[in-house]
Amino acid sequence: MSEKTASIPSGSVINPARRRLMAGGATVIAASMTGLAKAAGTGNAPATPAAPGKPLPPYVAWKDPNAMIVHTGSTLETRRSAFGTSIITPSEQLYIRNNLPAPDASIVADRDGWEISVEGVKHPRTLTVKELKTLGLETMATVLQCSGNGRGYFPSKPSGTAWQVGAAGCVVWSGVPVRVVMEALGGMVDGAVYMTSTGGEKLPDGIDPKSVMVERSVPRSAMADALLAWEMNGVPIPLAHGGPLRLIVPGYSGVNNIKYIRRLAFTAEQTDAAIQRTGYRISPPGQKGDPSQPSVWEMSVKSWINSPAPESGPVPGGLVQIKGVAFGGIHAVQGVEVSIDGGKTWQTAKFVGPDLGRYAWRQFVLPVKLSAGTHTLACRATDAKGNRQPEERMENAAGYNNTSWRDHALTIHVV
Amino acid sequence: MSEKTASIPSGSVINPARRRLMAGGATVIAASMTGLAKAAGTGNAPATPAAPGKPLPPYVAWKDPNAMIVHTGSTLETRRSAFGTSIITPSEQLYIRNNLPAPDASIVADRDGWEISVEGVKHPRTLTVKELKTLGLETMATVLQCSGNGRGYFPSKPSGTAWQVGAAGCVVWSGVPVRVVMEALGGMVDGAVYMTSTGGEKLPDGIDPKSVMVERSVPRSAMADALLAWEMNGVPIPLAHGGPLRLIVPGYSGVNNIKYIRRLAFTAEQTDAAIQRTGYRISPPGQKGDPSQPSVWEMSVKSWINSPAPESGPVPGGLVQIKGVAFGGIHAVQGVEVSIDGGKTWQTAKFVGPDLGRYAWRQFVLPVKLSAGTHTLACRATDAKGNRQPEERMENAAGYNNTSWRDHALTIHVV
Repeated sequence: MSEKTASIPSGSVINPARRRLMAGGATVIAASMTGLAKAAGTGNAPATPAAPGKPLPPYVAWKDPNAMIVHTGSTLETRRSAFGTSIITPSEQLYIRNNLPAPDASIVADRDGWEISVEGVKHPRTLTVKELKTLGLETMATVLQCSGNGRGYFPSKPSGTAWQVGAAGCVVWSGVPVRVVMEALGGMVDGAVYMTSTGGEKLPDGIDPKSVMVERSVPRSAMADALLAWEMNGVPIPLAHGGPLRLIVPGYSGVNNIKYIRRLAFTAEQTDAAIQRTGYRISPPGQKGDPSQPSVWEMSVKSWINSPAPESGPVPGGLVQIKGVAFGGIHAVQGVEVSIDGGKTWQTAKFVGPDLGRYAWRQFVLPVKLSAGTHTLACRATDAKGNRQPEERMENAAGYNNTSWRDHALTIHVV
Repeated sequence: MSEKTASIPSGSVINPARRRLMAGGATVIAASMTGLAKAAGTGNAPATPAAPGKPLPPYVAWKDPNAMIVHTGSTLETRRSAFGTSIITPSEQLYIRNNLPAPDASIVADRDGWEISVEGVKHPRTLTVKELKTLGLETMATVLQCSGNGRGYFPSKPSGTAWQVGAAGCVVWSGVPVRVVMEALGGMVDGAVYMTSTGGEKLPDGIDPKSVMVERSVPRSAMADALLAWEMNGVPIPLAHGGPLRLIVPGYSGVNNIKYIRRLAFTAEQTDAAIQRTGYRISPPGQKGDPSQPSVWEMSVKSWINSPAPESGPVPGGLVQIKGVAFGGIHAVQGVEVSIDGGKTWQTAKFVGPDLGRYAWRQFVLPVKLSAGTHTLACRATDAKGNRQPEERMENAAGYNNTSWRDHALTIHVV
């Protein structure tokens, strides 16, 4: 055994497992290895046993199997019924969407030693995480959401993961404001219009790097609240979520929040990497992406109901607490209305719990009396600018930015 | 293997382990079993490898071994260096203090079926968690702190765990307000002065139940913000932390937050259980506890520095971000001052991150320039009522409620 232990790589990719290993002893290990444990009740299981699904990929095997829907090895979403009401999404339930495989765990063996090159400033230089930690500290809750969240509701079945609501979570980040780093290096160069960031993924050989690299540009205005974060939900950012260092661009779609960031540059042009030039564009149905089309940048106001949900089985009649989440994207969320008749009439729901700020989501609840029969539940949120969640989705080729309240409505059976 | 798996009890006591089991494969399992894994870097390890200590007890083996100091099987505290800056304390790092062994995991196999008897109301009755969930929802962040947190700084070495700062955490709870339940049952009976709650621990045979049972009374005024909670940090409350149902009394010491609550009663008198009558009393040095002395109820304003800390090794000179937590107890925390000269002079620190409400703690940060040599760092918080953290501890026999800023000062070496 001691020989085996000598071969353990350091880094959080394995440690969440190690933390938990002794909890159940050998029988539990056996259960997990055979996958049978999914049938057992869990600390955060859905009200009904999890549907059988693909096993968790090894690099995120520390996730809660009962909370996750595994689409592919690089795309996992949170089950609607696993979203709790405590605002923050626990890391073991947070969705995964990686454009490239995660780097080797060795990069989190020495987190403070990770280096980022900062360019497009008066005094460009490379900084270690250890150095970044001396410059400042900010902590912020943001909704992290894949731009394709809700794609599963497009009848056109666009290519890409058919996410429902679970490619999103509300996460607390700690790091240093990009603004502070930029100012510490003499300020932005003249003519910089974009903040362009490059991920630290290892690129496959024999392919034009620009065709696969994760490099995104966002308007320089997005820098105002952006963070270079080293902590997520109270612990160093797990490798699978971008540790040792991740760019957080509050209010922007997930793809703009660059994992294992190794380069941050203030640039006059957007990067010509494919993921920016033709990828993640809002293209008319049937058309390919091109730079003339809008990029998936700022998120829009959105909400959905987590409970009661069809997947949790029949609902007993009488008093029912309808619960869900609502967020404003780039703006704060102002309010949310709930309908129990498919959108004919609406009632104002109540936000519960602390307000974690403009970029966080809020939990809402509405108590209603439901009689036996079938009911269609819907919700629609309004942001601080008065923008209201639309009834219909914005059709686009790739199925991005689905905020349609009708698409997200739920039909439940009350007994 | 399948035979073994058939024997797995349901319930969160084992599931946090199961969630993580496959993350590292057999070598990791081997490592954990032999305890050697503690030497490996971890997702949320202190800056220096964890000091060797007692292994985690099986019922909380899902905790992070690098984040916890194991005093005994029923007393574990969070390492100062493991407290992050994301406000909420991750469950796997939260302290444990149990007056009696946790009940069997079978009580979390059917969480919704757990029953609580509500007495001292017009229409007393027993309610299941499933019924409680239909009555209402509130979500709240509170500081959970053992009344003996800081006892380790008493030179008198009172009996009981010598906690430093880690018998505390900031946790998000979801449940139904006690007020809502009380009103749903016709309101409080006349003459009720206290809210008396009983834990669901299995009592040892052959002993007077009153001598060991966990039953606490708090003033009825504490009911205003009290919750009957079923969720903690986004998941059903783990057994070790009081699931399926725990009473949360915001602003009150940990012992008043009754785990596995099975009875809630509005009473004219305080319970005569030993844990209330003579236990947890603020007794003059050398004296035994008695009902004439103050009970450990409301918490007072307190703060401490988490970084830099001596346990994290020498600190490089230059710009240093001094970080810590501050809370007001029963009142909101208003501000915190930091001293780098042992209390001779003070500077106002800045709160960072969202304000999670009156009963939560806040992270603070103060950037300072530190030269080579030895420095004594201290902090003192002030609450919304103007109460300031005192320099000296309040001496008492059992070492409760230590809020002395001098006791909590840190001496660090800058190189």
